[in-house]
Order: sequence, then C-alpha cells, then structure tokens
Amino acid sequence: MIVLIKKDSRQEEINKLIHWLESLHLQVHVSEGVLQTILGLVGDTSRVDIDLVRSMEIVEDVKRIQEPYKNANRKFHPEDTVVEVNSAKIGGGGLTLIAGPCSVESAEQICAVARSVKASGATCLRGGAFKPRSSPYSFQGLGKEGIELLLIAKKETGLPIVTEVMDPSQLPLFDEVDIIQVGARNMQNFELLRELGRQRKPVLLKRGLSSTLEELLMSAEYIMAGGNEQVILCERGIRTFETSTRNTLDLSAVPMLKQLTHLPVVIDPSHSTGISRLVRPMSLAAVAAGADGLMIEVHNNPACALCDGPQSLTPAAFDELARTARLIHATLQAGKEFS
Amino acid sequence: MIVLIKKDSRQEEINKLIHWLESLHLQVHVSEGVLQTILGLVGDTSRVDIDLVRSMEIVEDVKRIQEPYKNANRKFHPEDTVVEVNSAKIGGGGLTLIAGPCSVESAEQICAVARSVKASGATCLRGGAFKPRSSPYSFQGLGKEGIELLLIAKKETGLPIVTEVMDPSQLPLFDEVDIIQVGARNMQNFELLRELGRQRKPVLLKRGLSSTLEELLMSAEYIMAGGNEQVILCERGIRTFETSTRNTLDLSAVPMLKQLTHLPVVIDPSHSTGISRLVRPMSLAAVAAGADGLMIEVHNNPACALCDGPQSLTPAAFDELARTARLIHATLQAGKEFS
Amino acid sequence: MIVLIKKDSRQEEINKLIHWLESLHLQVHVSEGVLQTILGLVGDTSRVDIDLVRSMEIVEDVKRIQEPYKNANRKFHPEDTVVEVNSAKIGGGGLTLIAGPCSVESAEQICAVARSVKASGATCLRGGAFKPRSSPYSFQGLGKEGIELLLIAKKETGLPIVTEVMDPSQLPLFDEVDIIQVGARNMQNFELLRELGRQRKPVLLKRGLSSTLEELLMSAEYIMAGGNEQVILCERGIRTFETSTRNTLDLSAVPMLKQLTHLPVVIDPSHSTGISRLVRPMSLAAVAAGADGLMIEVHNNPACALCDGPQSLTPAAFDELARTARLIHATLQAGKEFS
Amino acid sequence: MIVLIKKDSRQEEINKLIHWLESLHLQVHVSEGVLQTILGLVGDTSRVDIDLVRSMEIVEDVKRIQEPYKNANRKFHPEDTVVEVNSAKIGGGGLTLIAGPCSVESAEQICAVARSVKASGATCLRGGAFKPRSSPYSFQGLGKEGIELLLIAKKETGLPIVTEVMDPSQLPLFDEVDIIQVGARNMQNFELLRELGRQRKPVLLKRGLSSTLEELLMSAEYIMAGGNEQVILCERGIRTFETSTRNTLDLSAVPMLKQLTHLPVVIDPSHSTGISRLVRPMSLAAVAAGADGLMIEVHNNPACALCDGPQSLTPAAFDELARTARLIHATLQAGKEFS
Repeated sequence: MIVLIKKDSRQEEINKLIHWLESLHLQVHVSEGVLQTILGLVGDTSRVDIDLVRSMEIVEDVKRIQEPYKNANRKFHPEDTVVEVNSAKIGGGGLTLIAGPCSVESAEQICAVARSVKASGATCLRGGAFKPRSSPYSFQGLGKEGIELLLIAKKETGLPIVTEVMDPSQLPLFDEVDIIQVGARNMQNFELLRELGRQRKPVLLKRGLSSTLEELLMSAEYIMAGGNEQVILCERGIRTFETSTRNTLDLSAVPMLKQLTHLPVVIDPSHSTGISRLVRPMSLAAVAAGADGLMIEVHNNPACALCDGPQSLTPAAFDELARTARLIHATLQAGKEFS
Repeated sequence: MIVLIKKDSRQEEINKLIHWLESLHLQVHVSEGVLQTILGLVGDTSRVDIDLVRSMEIVEDVKRIQEPYKNANRKFHPEDTVVEVNSAKIGGGGLTLIAGPCSVESAEQICAVARSVKASGATCLRGGAFKPRSSPYSFQGLGKEGIELLLIAKKETGLPIVTEVMDPSQLPLFDEVDIIQVGARNMQNFELLRELGRQRKPVLLKRGLSSTLEELLMSAEYIMAGGNEQVILCERGIRTFETSTRNTLDLSAVPMLKQLTHLPVVIDPSHSTGISRLVRPMSLAAVAAGADGLMIEVHNNPACALCDGPQSLTPAAFDELARTARLIHATLQAGKEFS
Repeated sequence: MIVLIKKDSRQEEINKLIHWLESLHLQVHVSEGVLQTILGLVGDTSRVDIDLVRSMEIVEDVKRIQEPYKNANRKFHPEDTVVEVNSAKIGGGGLTLIAGPCSVESAEQICAVARSVKASGATCLRGGAFKPRSSPYSFQGLGKEGIELLLIAKKETGLPIVTEVMDPSQLPLFDEVDIIQVGARNMQNFELLRELGRQRKPVLLKRGLSSTLEELLMSAEYIMAGGNEQVILCERGIRTFETSTRNTLDLSAVPMLKQLTHLPVVIDPSHSTGISRLVRPMSLAAVAAGADGLMIEVHNNPACALCDGPQSLTPAAFDELARTARLIHATLQAGKEFS
Repeated sequence: MIVLIKKDSRQEEINKLIHWLESLHLQVHVSEGVLQTILGLVGDTSRVDIDLVRSMEIVEDVKRIQEPYKNANRKFHPEDTVVEVNSAKIGGGGLTLIAGPCSVESAEQICAVARSVKASGATCLRGGAFKPRSSPYSFQGLGKEGIELLLIAKKETGLPIVTEVMDPSQLPLFDEVDIIQVGARNMQNFELLRELGRQRKPVLLKRGLSSTLEELLMSAEYIMAGGNEQVILCERGIRTFETSTRNTLDLSAVPMLKQLTHLPVVIDPSHSTGISRLVRPMSLAAVAAGADGLMIEVHNNPACALCDGPQSLTPAAFDELARTARLIHATLQAGKEFS
C-alpha cells in the first residue's frame, strides 16, 4: 500500500500517522520527494481499512499494491482450486454442466429433468426451492418441500444438487444439499456470508447485478475467512443501460477472474440474457472464454405453455448445446497442447 | 394490464390463456384487431406474475397499466403518509433532520453528537452499530454494545434513534430502537423485508445501488404487505460510470417518488457523494427538490484525524447547513401559498 | 404501432389525432375497450415520430410493434448481407480477420505489420491515421500522411484497408480507402452519417460507449437511408460501472444483432478490454457467439517499449489466435451440419 | 505525475524511460523504495500521454497529481469566468435563465415565446434549428431558416440567442448567433471542438450521456486550447439503468465542477428528465446546488396538442418557476452574507 501525503502537511501529523500504521504491525518506508512525501507499507495490508486512511486530513490518496483479498488471491495460491462434489469436479480446466429447472414443482418434474440432463452430460442438478422475487405477490418457491423434492431426484439419479439459500435461518434445511447457492441480490448479505463461512460444503456465489469483480472477490473472502475454502464464483449478468437483454453478460469477467483468483468460475447464461434463444451462443462463448462450467435452466414440460420460462431450454436443446460446448472445450484443450 | 397476443396464434391457445386469467379472478376483455388480438385485464393485477405471462408462447408482450405495487401506491392512498416517532414527524411537507455519526464509538461520543445535532434542530439521531462492510477485515461496528450506547444517548437527549439491522436474527436487540434502517445492500433481502413487515415500528428503507424506483417500491411493498405501513424511503446514490463522486445522487427520484407513492422520501447526501464538501450543496438541492428529510453524518472529534470520515460534517458545519436548509424550505412553503 | 389513449379523453381530441395519423398514410384501427381506447396503426410506421405522438395530451403510451429501422431490419431483408472488398468477404457465416496497428507510424512499420498479419490469415488491414483523443495534447495521428502510408501497405500486400474518418471534410482523402470506419464517439454524428450515406463504399460503424443496440441500428439506418447499403456493425465495449476492464464487451450483442439485422457484426476485443491478455479469450468467445469477424490490434515493435500498446498483440500472439479462432469457427460450422 | 515502476525491472529500462521523460521537458525525481521504485515528474504533465506511459512494460501504474486539463483548471485560474453576451452574464454567482422552444417553427412562434420568456426574466433565448435526431426519419429542424427566425426574435426582443451546431460546415450560418451550443452526442466530436476553438464567441458545451466530468473538461480544454476561453458547461442528464426518467440528472456535477473549474455551469432539467412535471423541482434543486443558470424548454402553443413537448413548460409555468428560482437564489446569497 502506498500513501501519498498532502503537500505542506505538518511533520507532527505525519509522524502520528506513521506510529498508528506501525501499531497495525506494518513496516513503513518513507520517501520524501520534492513533490510529495510517500509512505510505502510492507506487511499484511489486507487488514488496513483503506477508507479510514483515505479520510485522514493529511492524506492525498492511497494506492493499493496488494489486492484487499488474501484467501481468494491467486498470488498466494497459484494452483486452481477444484471443488469436488461426489463425482462432479468444478475448476481446474474441466467443463462442468449444471442444469435443471428454474423452480422445483413436483417429484415427477424434477426427476424427469434430472434424468434428462444427466443423460446429456450434466453432473450437477440445479433447481429453485426458495425463490427471491422482487414482488411479494409472485410465487416464492416451494421452500422446504422443494428441497425434499430435490433430494428425491438426487437419490434417483445420483446427481449432486445446487439450490439457493436466502437467509441463515434456512440453513438447517440444507444438510443434504451439496452446493449452497447465494443469489445475486444476497452477494453482499454479509451475515449470510459469514454463516456460510462456518459451513464445510461448497458455496456457489453469484455476482451482484452492480458488483465489481473486486467486490465479488471480497464476498468470497468473507466465506473463506471463516474457514470455508470451497467457493465457486458465478457471473450472471450485470445491470447496464442496454434494454434488449435483461442484463449484460460480462464474459470478460472469466479471464479477469481466472487471473485474479484460483477459484472456479461458472457462467449462468439463462438469467443474464433472459432470452432462451441467446442461451446457446452465450454458453459457447463462455466455454471459449475459459469458463469452468455452465449453469443452465432446462424445463421439461413443452405441453404446458404456462411453465415455459422465457429463458429455459428444452431437454433436446440442452442436449445439443452440451455436445457443442464439449466440442469447443476439446478444441481449446487440443489447441493448448500444441501451443 | 394489456396482453398483446402474437399474430397467427391458435384460438385454442388463446382460450386456454383467457381461462387461466379468469381463474385468477380477473375480467378479460378481448379486442380482436386486424393487426393483433389484445386482452385487457380488469381487477387486481398486482398479483399477476408478469414474467410468467410474458414467457408464454402466444404472448408478444405485456403492458402494465397499473403499477405492480398497491399498498405503496399513491393512486390508492392519495394523502401523504406521515411517520411519527415521539415528537419527530417524517413526511407531509415538513423537513426532518436526522443526524449522527457514521459509527457509534463510545457513550461520550454518541451523547456529545446527539446533544450537538439536537441543538442544531435535528429530531432524530442516527448511528451505526451493525456496519455492513465490503471487507471481512474492516471494522464491523460495536453491534449490541453500539445499540446500548445509542439508547443511552436517546435517554439523555430524548431523540428517537435510527440504526441499521443486517439480519432478522438481530431484531430482538432493536426493541427500543425507534426506526429500523435497511441498508442499500439489503434492499432486496426479502427474508429481512418480510420479517420487518411483522414489526410495528417505522422502517427506513435505503434504495439499492442499482435498484430502480419500481424495485424500491416493490421492496417497500414487501414490508407493507406484512401489515407494517410505516416505511420511509431513502435515496442514497446509485452506481453509474462516473467516478469523481462515490455514487451519483439521483435527486429526480424525489419528485418521481412523491408522485408514485404516499410514503415519505428522505435523502442521504453523505453516503451518496462520499465527499464532505458536497454534503451542503446536495442537501440544499434535496430540500429544493421537495425531500421530506435529510439524513446526515456528523462527527464530533476534530482533534482525532483518524475519526474524520471523508463524508462527515463537523457540528458547526451541520448547524449552518440546518439553518440554510430551513430557510430554503420556508422559501418554498411561502412560494406555495402565493402560487 | 399501438397507441394507448388516456381514459376519459374527449372524442373530439381522439378524432383529431386519428385524422393526423391518416394524413401520414397510415391506416388506423380503433379498439374501444372498457378500460381503454387503443389505436392500431398499419403502414410504414418507421417514419412516425414516436416521441411526438407520446408527447400528446391524450396519449397514455405508444408501443412499437415494428422496429423503427427498415433498411437494416432482417424482417424485410432475411438474407445476410455480405460486404465484399477485393477478396475479403464480411458476413454470411465466414470469419474475417481485420488486423493492424493502433496508429500508423511509418512505411516500414505498417508494411511489416501488414505482411505479418496477412501471413497469419488476416484479409483486411486496419490502422489509425486520424485518431480521436480525449485530450487535445495527445498524439492525434499522422492524418493525411497516415492514409498515404496505409495505401503503400495496401499496394505492397494487396490487403484492403480500414481506417477512421472523424469529419465529413476529411472524406476526399478516403478515395482509395476500402472501408471507412466511424468511431464510437461519432456513432451519433448525424451529419457524418448522412455524408457516408452518399458514399458507395463499405462503412464499419462502431457502437457508441453508451448506445443501445437500437440506437446503433438507427445510425446504420442513417447511412442506408442515403443509399449506401454496405454497413458493418462493430461492438467494441460499453461503459458500465466495472473498472477492472476499460469497457465491458457486450457479446450478447452478437446473437441479438444477428436476429435483428442482416448486416455483418464484427467484434473489437482490443479496445473493449484495454488489456492485451484478454484479447485472446474474448476473441475466441466472440467467434463462438457467432461474430462475422474480429478486428484486432497488432504491433510489430517489441524492442521499443514506448510503442507497445497495452491492448496490442505481438505478431506471434496474433498468429496463434488466428489459428485457434479458425478451429473454433470450423467446429461450430461442423456442428451446424450435423444438427 | 507519479510513475510506479514494476518490481524487478531492469535498471537499463528504467533509465531509458527517465531519459524519454526528460526529453519532454519534465524533471524526474527518483525514489527507490524497498517495495518499489517511484518516479515523480515535475513540469507541465498535461502534455504527457498517460496511456502511452501506462502501456510500457516496466510501468505498474501511473497516478496523476495534476489534472490533465490546464486552461479549464481552477487551480491555474482561481476566479470564476463570467461569459458576457450583450446584457446577459453567465457565471460568477448570478442566476441566468435561458429559455425557449425545443424547435424553432415559425416567426410567430419564436417571437411569441421570446417576448414571453423575456417578460419572465430570461436573458437568453434558446431554440433548435439543426436538430440531432436518432432516427433519419424524424423531423431534423428548419436548419438555416430556423436560424433566420431566431435572428428575427433576437432583433425584436434584444435577447441573445443560443442554438446548436452539428458540423463545422454549418458555422458560416452562425455569424450572428450569440452562443453556439454543442449537443451531448457531439461532446467528443473533436474536429468540431477544434473548429470552435478558432471562433471568438461563447460555446455552450453539453455533457455527453456517458461522459465523466473529466472528459467534459477535456472537451472544454479542446476549445480553450484553440484560444476560445468562453466555454459554458451544461449538465443535461447521464445514462444509467433507471428507466422512470429519460436520463439521470447528475446535480452533484454542479459543486464538483465548480471546484474543478472556473467555467460557468448551467443545468438543463428539460432534456435530462424528459418529463415536464419534473422540470420545476429539478430546476429549484439546481439553483440550490449552486448552478450559474438554467436552460429550460418553453412552448407557447397550448391549443395544438401536436406541439406540446413532453418536457416543455407553458409560459405561465415558466413564469412561476423563474420567480421561485430567484427567491431560492436570493435566499442562498443572503445566507452567504451572514455565514
């Protein structure tokens, strides 16, 4: 961390600041230039409150050299983290397909979708039991019963299950859930993150609609600081001015995150675009950009118009997508061997 | 609500949709045009899941005529809601000043600030006990002890207190808190909103960093649908591309919200800009735009550089601001009488 | 176009509006519902000023059924437009590589880069002669001399050239330029667009930093309305709140534009991310998303640190990228044949 | 300017950079810290291409201490610039009202509006002759004839006129125009800015929809670098995710710009919100925030529904607004005297 001191600051004030920094177990190197006095801080600066330092009268600006996250930082953990759940592996250069319906509706529905996506190569089953809805009058999911139905599908197919938690008080229901999902609107629900840090099972953390990558990594850090290292990051579209898609899928986040962190990165193309026709091209693009996995909505009820989510694929469309995604993944892997 | 049916849809499918809509206790008026069949829905459409309807195969688009919120809607409740807490009134054309430190630090600090802002005309005391911080390594507030210190200041000055809750499990600590604040990052923490709907005390609901006004009103609706009508809305800056201020204060939200809803609207100019020098002009602008109140950070420790928040005012600066804000408010009120 | 009339509007006013609409050669179908009177307009509504209609006292809202662009609209022109320049073809399912330096600096530089990118498979040479710079004190490009140097490279390699125009007055210098580029900041420089509509050579139109896809297509429409049908659209990143990349590359724009328009769509991954390390993954993602081409910055001067743009690839890196991009493109084409 | 050198850079490379910087007439102060070598540059760094320096292999980051604009910078020109046009003064603590119709339509219309707004206290007349429209099929303004009509109104009322230029080729028509307006979409039309730098009359420069304040000031710098010091800045709303208003008026820009620059700052509340009902509160808020003026759309044709812009005020509404705005301005001035 580099602290730029304002010109004409009194030496007494500068010394006060230096003593305080040293009390935080940091070494302080002072460079007195003609223009400006600069303090270089050595040590574990991830624990320094940068806003507090920036707010001080004598401080012109503060520049981090180190990132503010430590457990999630690739610099301190160069190898890819691979999250293993039963036979599924997420991270480390593979391509994991997570698929399932938007909402769990019945045992028949979830088991049929589970069998179908498993046959197409998915290794995890997703399905919403607790549904965050912007309106209190919209369907809020089956809740506890939804989780029970997911567990039936898990038992039948062997697929590990991913489903969303909305509040720490729901966690007792998640005992047999394999991966706990944190939704975009809860990415900075710090009490929930802290509680998930005490769990010992994987967490799939979705990026908030207007969260920077650094904020996403800081939220991962909340979980990891509690001792839970199994965090999967998920980009699901950010809020921009463009209105032709529901959100703007930020695929640059894939290579950017892979450089900043060792955690796996998966892409949710269903929620980001909100349009089923865009799911295939954006899924393939995500694979080409280097994503570790895809999380895709698949429904199984073509007869019932009411259940067709605008962003869901049919099982047949998912099957074709899965095949092409694997082809692209294989092409990239072959390319790597020759390059 | 108006539903545009896709050209060349089969009559059988259209009838199926109409029956389903009627099963939701809506009257359906069909207009068959040359171009397009249009369904006009009469009844309580706030309970219709617009995404579900839009997702149907035969639906081209859905247009709301009614807003999706009902309890918060000025159309159904033309008079301003006035939230009363002890002697403080928020809403209905007055100007309420809420002031206090960013974080509660000690009994001396909070009582000194409370006395000072009361003398300047503030009628509510704010202060952070549970602090949402993007880093797990930053100071997270004094928690329970912070609330106890606020209650000491309340007892000493008689000022009602406003402080933030971060999780439903903290609510038992808020028994004597007068107004419960929901922070921007929790605006769509629906479990928390639902729980606050069961409370019978005012909630100050901050707009999320990337939330539309409609989403803010839907979150208010969550609280009101539970039976708690005392919601105060707070604009505190939205996330945009501009970087010279921390967030962009959206003052158009004031007249826009006053038109859409009967709930009081207050402005937090401290957090939105993140720069103390901008607090005064943006506070005065908020008053001129018609805000019902201001929520302002005031610190009392000029000697200690470490405590000066970059966005906090000194007690003297707050005193001057309070006087000028009241002058502008009075000028506007006088103008109204003559016009 | 559907016009919703406000409840309780006077019939006299409604008739006045209907007569005016009919005077624009539109047929007006009136549906009088219980809720609302609705006018359905049949005819060429792309020439109706929607803002004007929306602004009328008796109008509640206006909903387009048709898009406001006509020449660029795939509905009226289902086949892909293929722009042909010498041997290069852009559009129609191929993959065109456009490469070259950010700025043209010297005959040696531009010829060396041209030979190198041609050997790697590029079929167009890009290079900046007139450079739009946000500071008046930054290097503004070699201007006329830069174009002359590009023409030398064209003569030597046979590659058609793409370079940016900033003002209609520069057009006489573009006689032998093959594709005229319009930069993001000029996407709504309507006088320039109108002038380019009078040209009879391809225009590569970059999306503005905060332009919607509809606005991009309306700017293409400006050029096409003048009789110049050869427009190539280019997504180059949009402005969002995220700061880890310079802009956010919106790859959803590829499938979205391919559906809305018949015009070719190319991606510029160099300017969007501003980081050379991201050029490869985002290029491959663009190909997988279905882009018709890539426009990539390549420099040739590894010895001179000063010339290494932060977003430029070395010739060797471009060569590897071109090979992998073609592999992914071929994989997708093969997939199409089987599906 | 401070240049952070990457750790482990070779001394030879560092020396090469230092020599190059010195060749730009800058003094270079080297601080070799344990962590990092830092170069402090003294001299006129506004002419250094920061992107070029940042792109160098050995450079970790570059931090400006000085702003990249010089002529527009308040540091080098502490007194407010006051632009004088006939009797109108813009800047320096006054409140200037600029009013008039969106488009000039006829001599009767423009003269009637001119007389009316003059009577209400406006000291400049605005009116569009060349209209930038996103559709080539929308009305593009009367052009040359529109300017002639404005000059008739100027002659009749003595009000100086403000109207928009869209291309340098139109400038000969602006000989008798008093203030030349640059629209938001042309804020980075650098050829136009350069040409306006050669003029010797005031330019009203509107902020681009997605331009930062620094970019706005750099565009002002383009004009000023050409020798034309009379630039008036205009905030007119930025593009954000919020859709209830057309754009988001960024009033924080007022105090921020007043601190960064000596140039006058006016607010256009009509275009930013796009809703006439919001013009009054946002105008009053702009005055309270410290704006030097307001630019407001006023129409005069209540009988003709077609001409009522959704964002235009009636003459009566403008008259009331002008009175209240002056009252608020006077209240603030009185407050300043006592504080």
